[in-house]
Amino acid sequence: MTVRVGVIGTGMIGQDHIRRITEVVPGGRVAAVTDADLARAAQVAAGLPGTRLHQTGQDLIADGDVDAVLVTSWGATHEEYVLAAIAAGKRVFCEKPLAPTAAGALRIVEAELGAGRRLVQVGFMRRYDAGYNAIKDALDAGQVGAPLLMHCAHRNPAAPPYGFTTDMIISDSAVHELDLVRWLFDEEIAAVTVLRPRPTSKVGGELQDPLVLLLEMASGTLVDVEVFVNAGYGYDIRAEVVGESGTLALADAGGAVVSRQGQRGGRVPADWRERFGRAFDAEFSDWLRAVAAGAATGPSSWDGYAAALVTDHCLRALGTGERVTIAMPERPDFYAKTDE
Amino acid sequence: MTVRVGVIGTGMIGQDHIRRITEVVPGGRVAAVTDADLARAAQVAAGLPGTRLHQTGQDLIADGDVDAVLVTSWGATHEEYVLAAIAAGKRVFCEKPLAPTAAGALRIVEAELGAGRRLVQVGFMRRYDAGYNAIKDALDAGQVGAPLLMHCAHRNPAAPPYGFTTDMIISDSAVHELDLVRWLFDEEIAAVTVLRPRPTSKVGGELQDPLVLLLEMASGTLVDVEVFVNAGYGYDIRAEVVGESGTLALADAGGAVVSRQGQRGGRVPADWRERFGRAFDAEFSDWLRAVAAGAATGPSSWDGYAAALVTDHCLRALGTGERVTIAMPERPDFYAKTDE
Amino acid sequence: MTVRVGVIGTGMIGQDHIRRITEVVPGGRVAAVTDADLARAAQVAAGLPGTRLHQTGQDLIADGDVDAVLVTSWGATHEEYVLAAIAAGKRVFCEKPLAPTAAGALRIVEAELGAGRRLVQVGFMRRYDAGYNAIKDALDAGQVGAPLLMHCAHRNPAAPPYGFTTDMIISDSAVHELDLVRWLFDEEIAAVTVLRPRPTSKVGGELQDPLVLLLEMASGTLVDVEVFVNAGYGYDIRAEVVGESGTLALADAGGAVVSRQGQRGGRVPADWRERFGRAFDAEFSDWLRAVAAGAATGPSSWDGYAAALVTDHCLRALGTGERVTIAMPERPDFYAKTDE
Amino acid sequence: MTVRVGVIGTGMIGQDHIRRITEVVPGGRVAAVTDADLARAAQVAAGLPGTRLHQTGQDLIADGDVDAVLVTSWGATHEEYVLAAIAAGKRVFCEKPLAPTAAGALRIVEAELGAGRRLVQVGFMRRYDAGYNAIKDALDAGQVGAPLLMHCAHRNPAAPPYGFTTDMIISDSAVHELDLVRWLFDEEIAAVTVLRPRPTSKVGGELQDPLVLLLEMASGTLVDVEVFVNAGYGYDIRAEVVGESGTLALADAGGAVVSRQGQRGGRVPADWRERFGRAFDAEFSDWLRAVAAGAATGPSSWDGYAAALVTDHCLRALGTGERVTIAMPERPDFYAKTDE
Repeated sequence: MTVRVGVIGTGMIGQDHIRRITEVVPGGRVAAVTDADLARAAQVAAGLPGTRLHQTGQDLIADGDVDAVLVTSWGATHEEYVLAAIAAGKRVFCEKPLAPTAAGALRIVEAELGAGRRLVQVGFMRRYDAGYNAIKDALDAGQVGAPLLMHCAHRNPAAPPYGFTTDMIISDSAVHELDLVRWLFDEEIAAVTVLRPRPTSKVGGELQDPLVLLLEMASGTLVDVEVFVNAGYGYDIRAEVVGESGTLALADAGGAVVSRQGQRGGRVPADWRERFGRAFDAEFSDWLRAVAAGAATGPSSWDGYAAALVTDHCLRALGTGERVTIAMPERPDFYAKTDE
Repeated sequence: MTVRVGVIGTGMIGQDHIRRITEVVPGGRVAAVTDADLARAAQVAAGLPGTRLHQTGQDLIADGDVDAVLVTSWGATHEEYVLAAIAAGKRVFCEKPLAPTAAGALRIVEAELGAGRRLVQVGFMRRYDAGYNAIKDALDAGQVGAPLLMHCAHRNPAAPPYGFTTDMIISDSAVHELDLVRWLFDEEIAAVTVLRPRPTSKVGGELQDPLVLLLEMASGTLVDVEVFVNAGYGYDIRAEVVGESGTLALADAGGAVVSRQGQRGGRVPADWRERFGRAFDAEFSDWLRAVAAGAATGPSSWDGYAAALVTDHCLRALGTGERVTIAMPERPDFYAKTDE
Repeated sequence: MTVRVGVIGTGMIGQDHIRRITEVVPGGRVAAVTDADLARAAQVAAGLPGTRLHQTGQDLIADGDVDAVLVTSWGATHEEYVLAAIAAGKRVFCEKPLAPTAAGALRIVEAELGAGRRLVQVGFMRRYDAGYNAIKDALDAGQVGAPLLMHCAHRNPAAPPYGFTTDMIISDSAVHELDLVRWLFDEEIAAVTVLRPRPTSKVGGELQDPLVLLLEMASGTLVDVEVFVNAGYGYDIRAEVVGESGTLALADAGGAVVSRQGQRGGRVPADWRERFGRAFDAEFSDWLRAVAAGAATGPSSWDGYAAALVTDHCLRALGTGERVTIAMPERPDFYAKTDE
Repeated sequence: MTVRVGVIGTGMIGQDHIRRITEVVPGGRVAAVTDADLARAAQVAAGLPGTRLHQTGQDLIADGDVDAVLVTSWGATHEEYVLAAIAAGKRVFCEKPLAPTAAGALRIVEAELGAGRRLVQVGFMRRYDAGYNAIKDALDAGQVGAPLLMHCAHRNPAAPPYGFTTDMIISDSAVHELDLVRWLFDEEIAAVTVLRPRPTSKVGGELQDPLVLLLEMASGTLVDVEVFVNAGYGYDIRAEVVGESGTLALADAGGAVVSRQGQRGGRVPADWRERFGRAFDAEFSDWLRAVAAGAATGPSSWDGYAAALVTDHCLRALGTGERVTIAMPERPDFYAKTDE
């Protein structure tokens, strides 16, 4: 069965996922598209034979030829479309954030609980990255004992020059680590602190970049996350878990080692597409396979809610400069496993 | 358009490609299968809804519901099936070797020339590996100047315990490098020598393992290839091109760096599936896309013929211990580009 | 001129330095020794022709055949011997800590100021490590712009099984980083926080291991230091400076890369002797050269005082769990350069 | 005891060793110097208090205040001075080559046999390199089983622009590997072949650069050595031993890992001083210690003879293009161990 996907949002990320469904992974085709910018959606539809154009996301969701929905629109609209897809009983893949606030994400969780089955997958693609999975496998296999610490760095070459706020360093960038550590350690984040190092002078305005987040897991494992969105030199994602008897770190990317002009070394990825392209492929492959099988997989709406809740607390910690504890509600049995 | 593929040969490699077409890459489905062991083919067909079982490769090729043919049968049968596919005007992907001898491969080239269009792709998957492509891109971009030398190592953890001969170290293993250097440097191999280092004592019998091949490219670039099929510790493929102003080498695989028990390091791939899995995926994705578009791509039957011709000369060099020059016929314009 | 060195303290570290002066670096010889355990000192003296045994440190310092003094006795006795050496007008190399408290170190600073010339060098050997110096050189050359962050890890395979307290993780281990960052960034530490991650279960008792120190430099550069004295797998010292346009990290040690049993990698040093042996050599070579030339070099007593002051504040931060600011007195012009 | 060294040859390498003896390693001092260019020797002597200037090497050797002789003069003069030192019963360290021809080296061996004790050490400093020693230790410990192959690369940034001949690529550069493999595998080289890859276009004239040497050890272990003296990008020495169950390779140098401008990597040494500086230090430290103890250590004159003999055969192989077998005379019991 080929899953007929309706895509709400045909911007950069939406078009990248359309390419992925159309050309890279098997099991799906784009049956319909729409966008707040209808002209852009029409142009995308024109390039895809047999793809219908809808005026609104609601129309698209209602389309009987759409089996499953992909939400890649502006973050503020996610909640509305995901709720509509749940109401229509259709599977939906929603790019992060599931909703801009924890309250919105919780409404989705409640709707899904009401529907009685998992319909939502959230786009935390790092869970599909080979490097993180190698770390998780080694950790779960006990190769380094219980985890005590984790050091992370999340570096972008440059944030968008306008409109990127310090809050967004957390809600747009660090949110990936907020989800990742929950998955990696299979437990919740109990408290957060946000530190303000000396800011880079390379960007003007009031941006506090980089930030350092301190995440305290329920068991006491301490995670520090450097988030630096104007790091300049490349897109560099680093992680090292320190266990009782050893450590596990992300390896450098493969490719070629070049020796020239007195230096030997390799390439730092240019952007998230280069770094996580394969993780996105694996994520969509997994989603389409699950949809075809009538099953759920990957990060759930509960994970989306948890990430939103922790994000809210991080923003509060950023504002106050204080450590903030998080009272995460108990996870319903319905979401018994982080990833199934 | 979904390409309906008929698969001749449902052994290990055939089944792996069937899984690839069915689950990993888009654009194709397995429409029919056959095998010298019909029971095995029947079992494979039973697991694939809508897949027909044929008694012979010729029947499968003649099947009107088969758009393109995948030949993964025993090497000695390749020529017959590829010729039949050409005669039927169908595109055919043939695992290496295209034919066990240069003479057989040449008959395929001639048949294809007679057909007037490129129908054959040969399974030299390394041309699709990210690492080799990073090297080729850097080389073509002039990052290290003209290539003068290349050092290669091709190590398998263990050869099959029975029936693996010294000749097969060349025809089954080194043949990948024989094709690769032609593609990488875009020129022919002009002479070969085969050296016999001290053999491993880990295998009994008369196997001369490892071998070292010296390949002299037409321009004088010298390639040495260590081929060691019982290297024990893993599947390890190494390559370094030495240019006039720098070098380009395959990087280690990514994944996790583990620090424990006084050591820090990463994993060596366990086998060719782990090392080249993504290259196989890219290869089939490319082939299916080309077939759907009515185009040819990848290594051609001329490349298969060239590899067979060089293999023949290497075997002669192995036998005599002498340097053997190769008089490669001029490539017909029809095959003007190694890879288009 | 060969510097005649008197050694106070012939325990493990004292004997290692005696070996260094006698066999590894030029410019000095051991003229006299003493120790709280006189039998041990006598045994050491017996193995060194021409080396005199003294009953007390004061006797040794007064010996006219002793040009310069090396203090490697128990930490609590350092202040007394260093003050005596200053009073005698002799150059003195004192292993860290210069004194167990900032108050004691300050008395040494004042005595040296009174003497009117720099006589004291403190044993912060990391300033002589090739890796840290490569980082400092690149930083000073502006290769990565202004430093914003630094991530450090200081891991020992195991702390002594008895008597090693949580305070000592700071005063004995982290003190190296406390000095190092002052030297690296050429500025003071303005505030400290000490975090308590989940402790390892591998040691009993009340030891809180690991700790994480957050050091805020005067300019805002934020340094996090993991100190884990029972890390199990080896002696692993890591550092990465994050600048505005790139990062600088300690490279892995050299030696051999071993590929076996599915793994490829190198050795983690077994202990500080293996990791910093060459730094110790360079440190003593530099000290003896300076003594012979009648000059001062290396970390000064002011550096020893600053490290003790920051240590005191870290211990307070450890006790309270709060961030503690440090009011470092202005450095006298006498100590104008951290390292001359 | 401080060894009083007389230095014959105060050119670049001689001055570097004088600095080493004077400032870096303990146990020796430069008592006398001479040079074919007496003005240069006088200038060097003037900078070293208490160092005597001699008109000739013979005078220097005869000087009663010279305990041991260091020969760093032009290669063609080595034999004469080493023979004179032996005749005078003095220990002598001779930079490679021991003599320009095997016949000359054999005369030294015979003189030393006549003297009845080992007086000569030859300057093959790589035997003192930490990386090669880590490989040798792992090999001798059986970590990778019996050695079957070794791959070496010896790359200089640039050869002297005038007067550097193809023969010298072997006699001046590759000679280090010729000695090294004898030491590493503790056996002789039985046959050699020299290959001529495509030469670099970066140097004019008739220089055939790079060369590839194939060295067949007595046991059959095959060593390939790339020697490329105008490699341009740095001084890069690579080695990998392939054993029956794994491989051992030189690691990259330590120092700092720099991430900037889309690249991550480290430094390639600029020259042999940077790469092997510590090996030279260890070599001289070992020699002076042995001289003081009245013992011999390090590469012997037999090793110098063997290297010269293999060099001669490599030059013949270069000239003829053929494989040349080597009939190495049996090593006298006198030289029973390669390195004691």
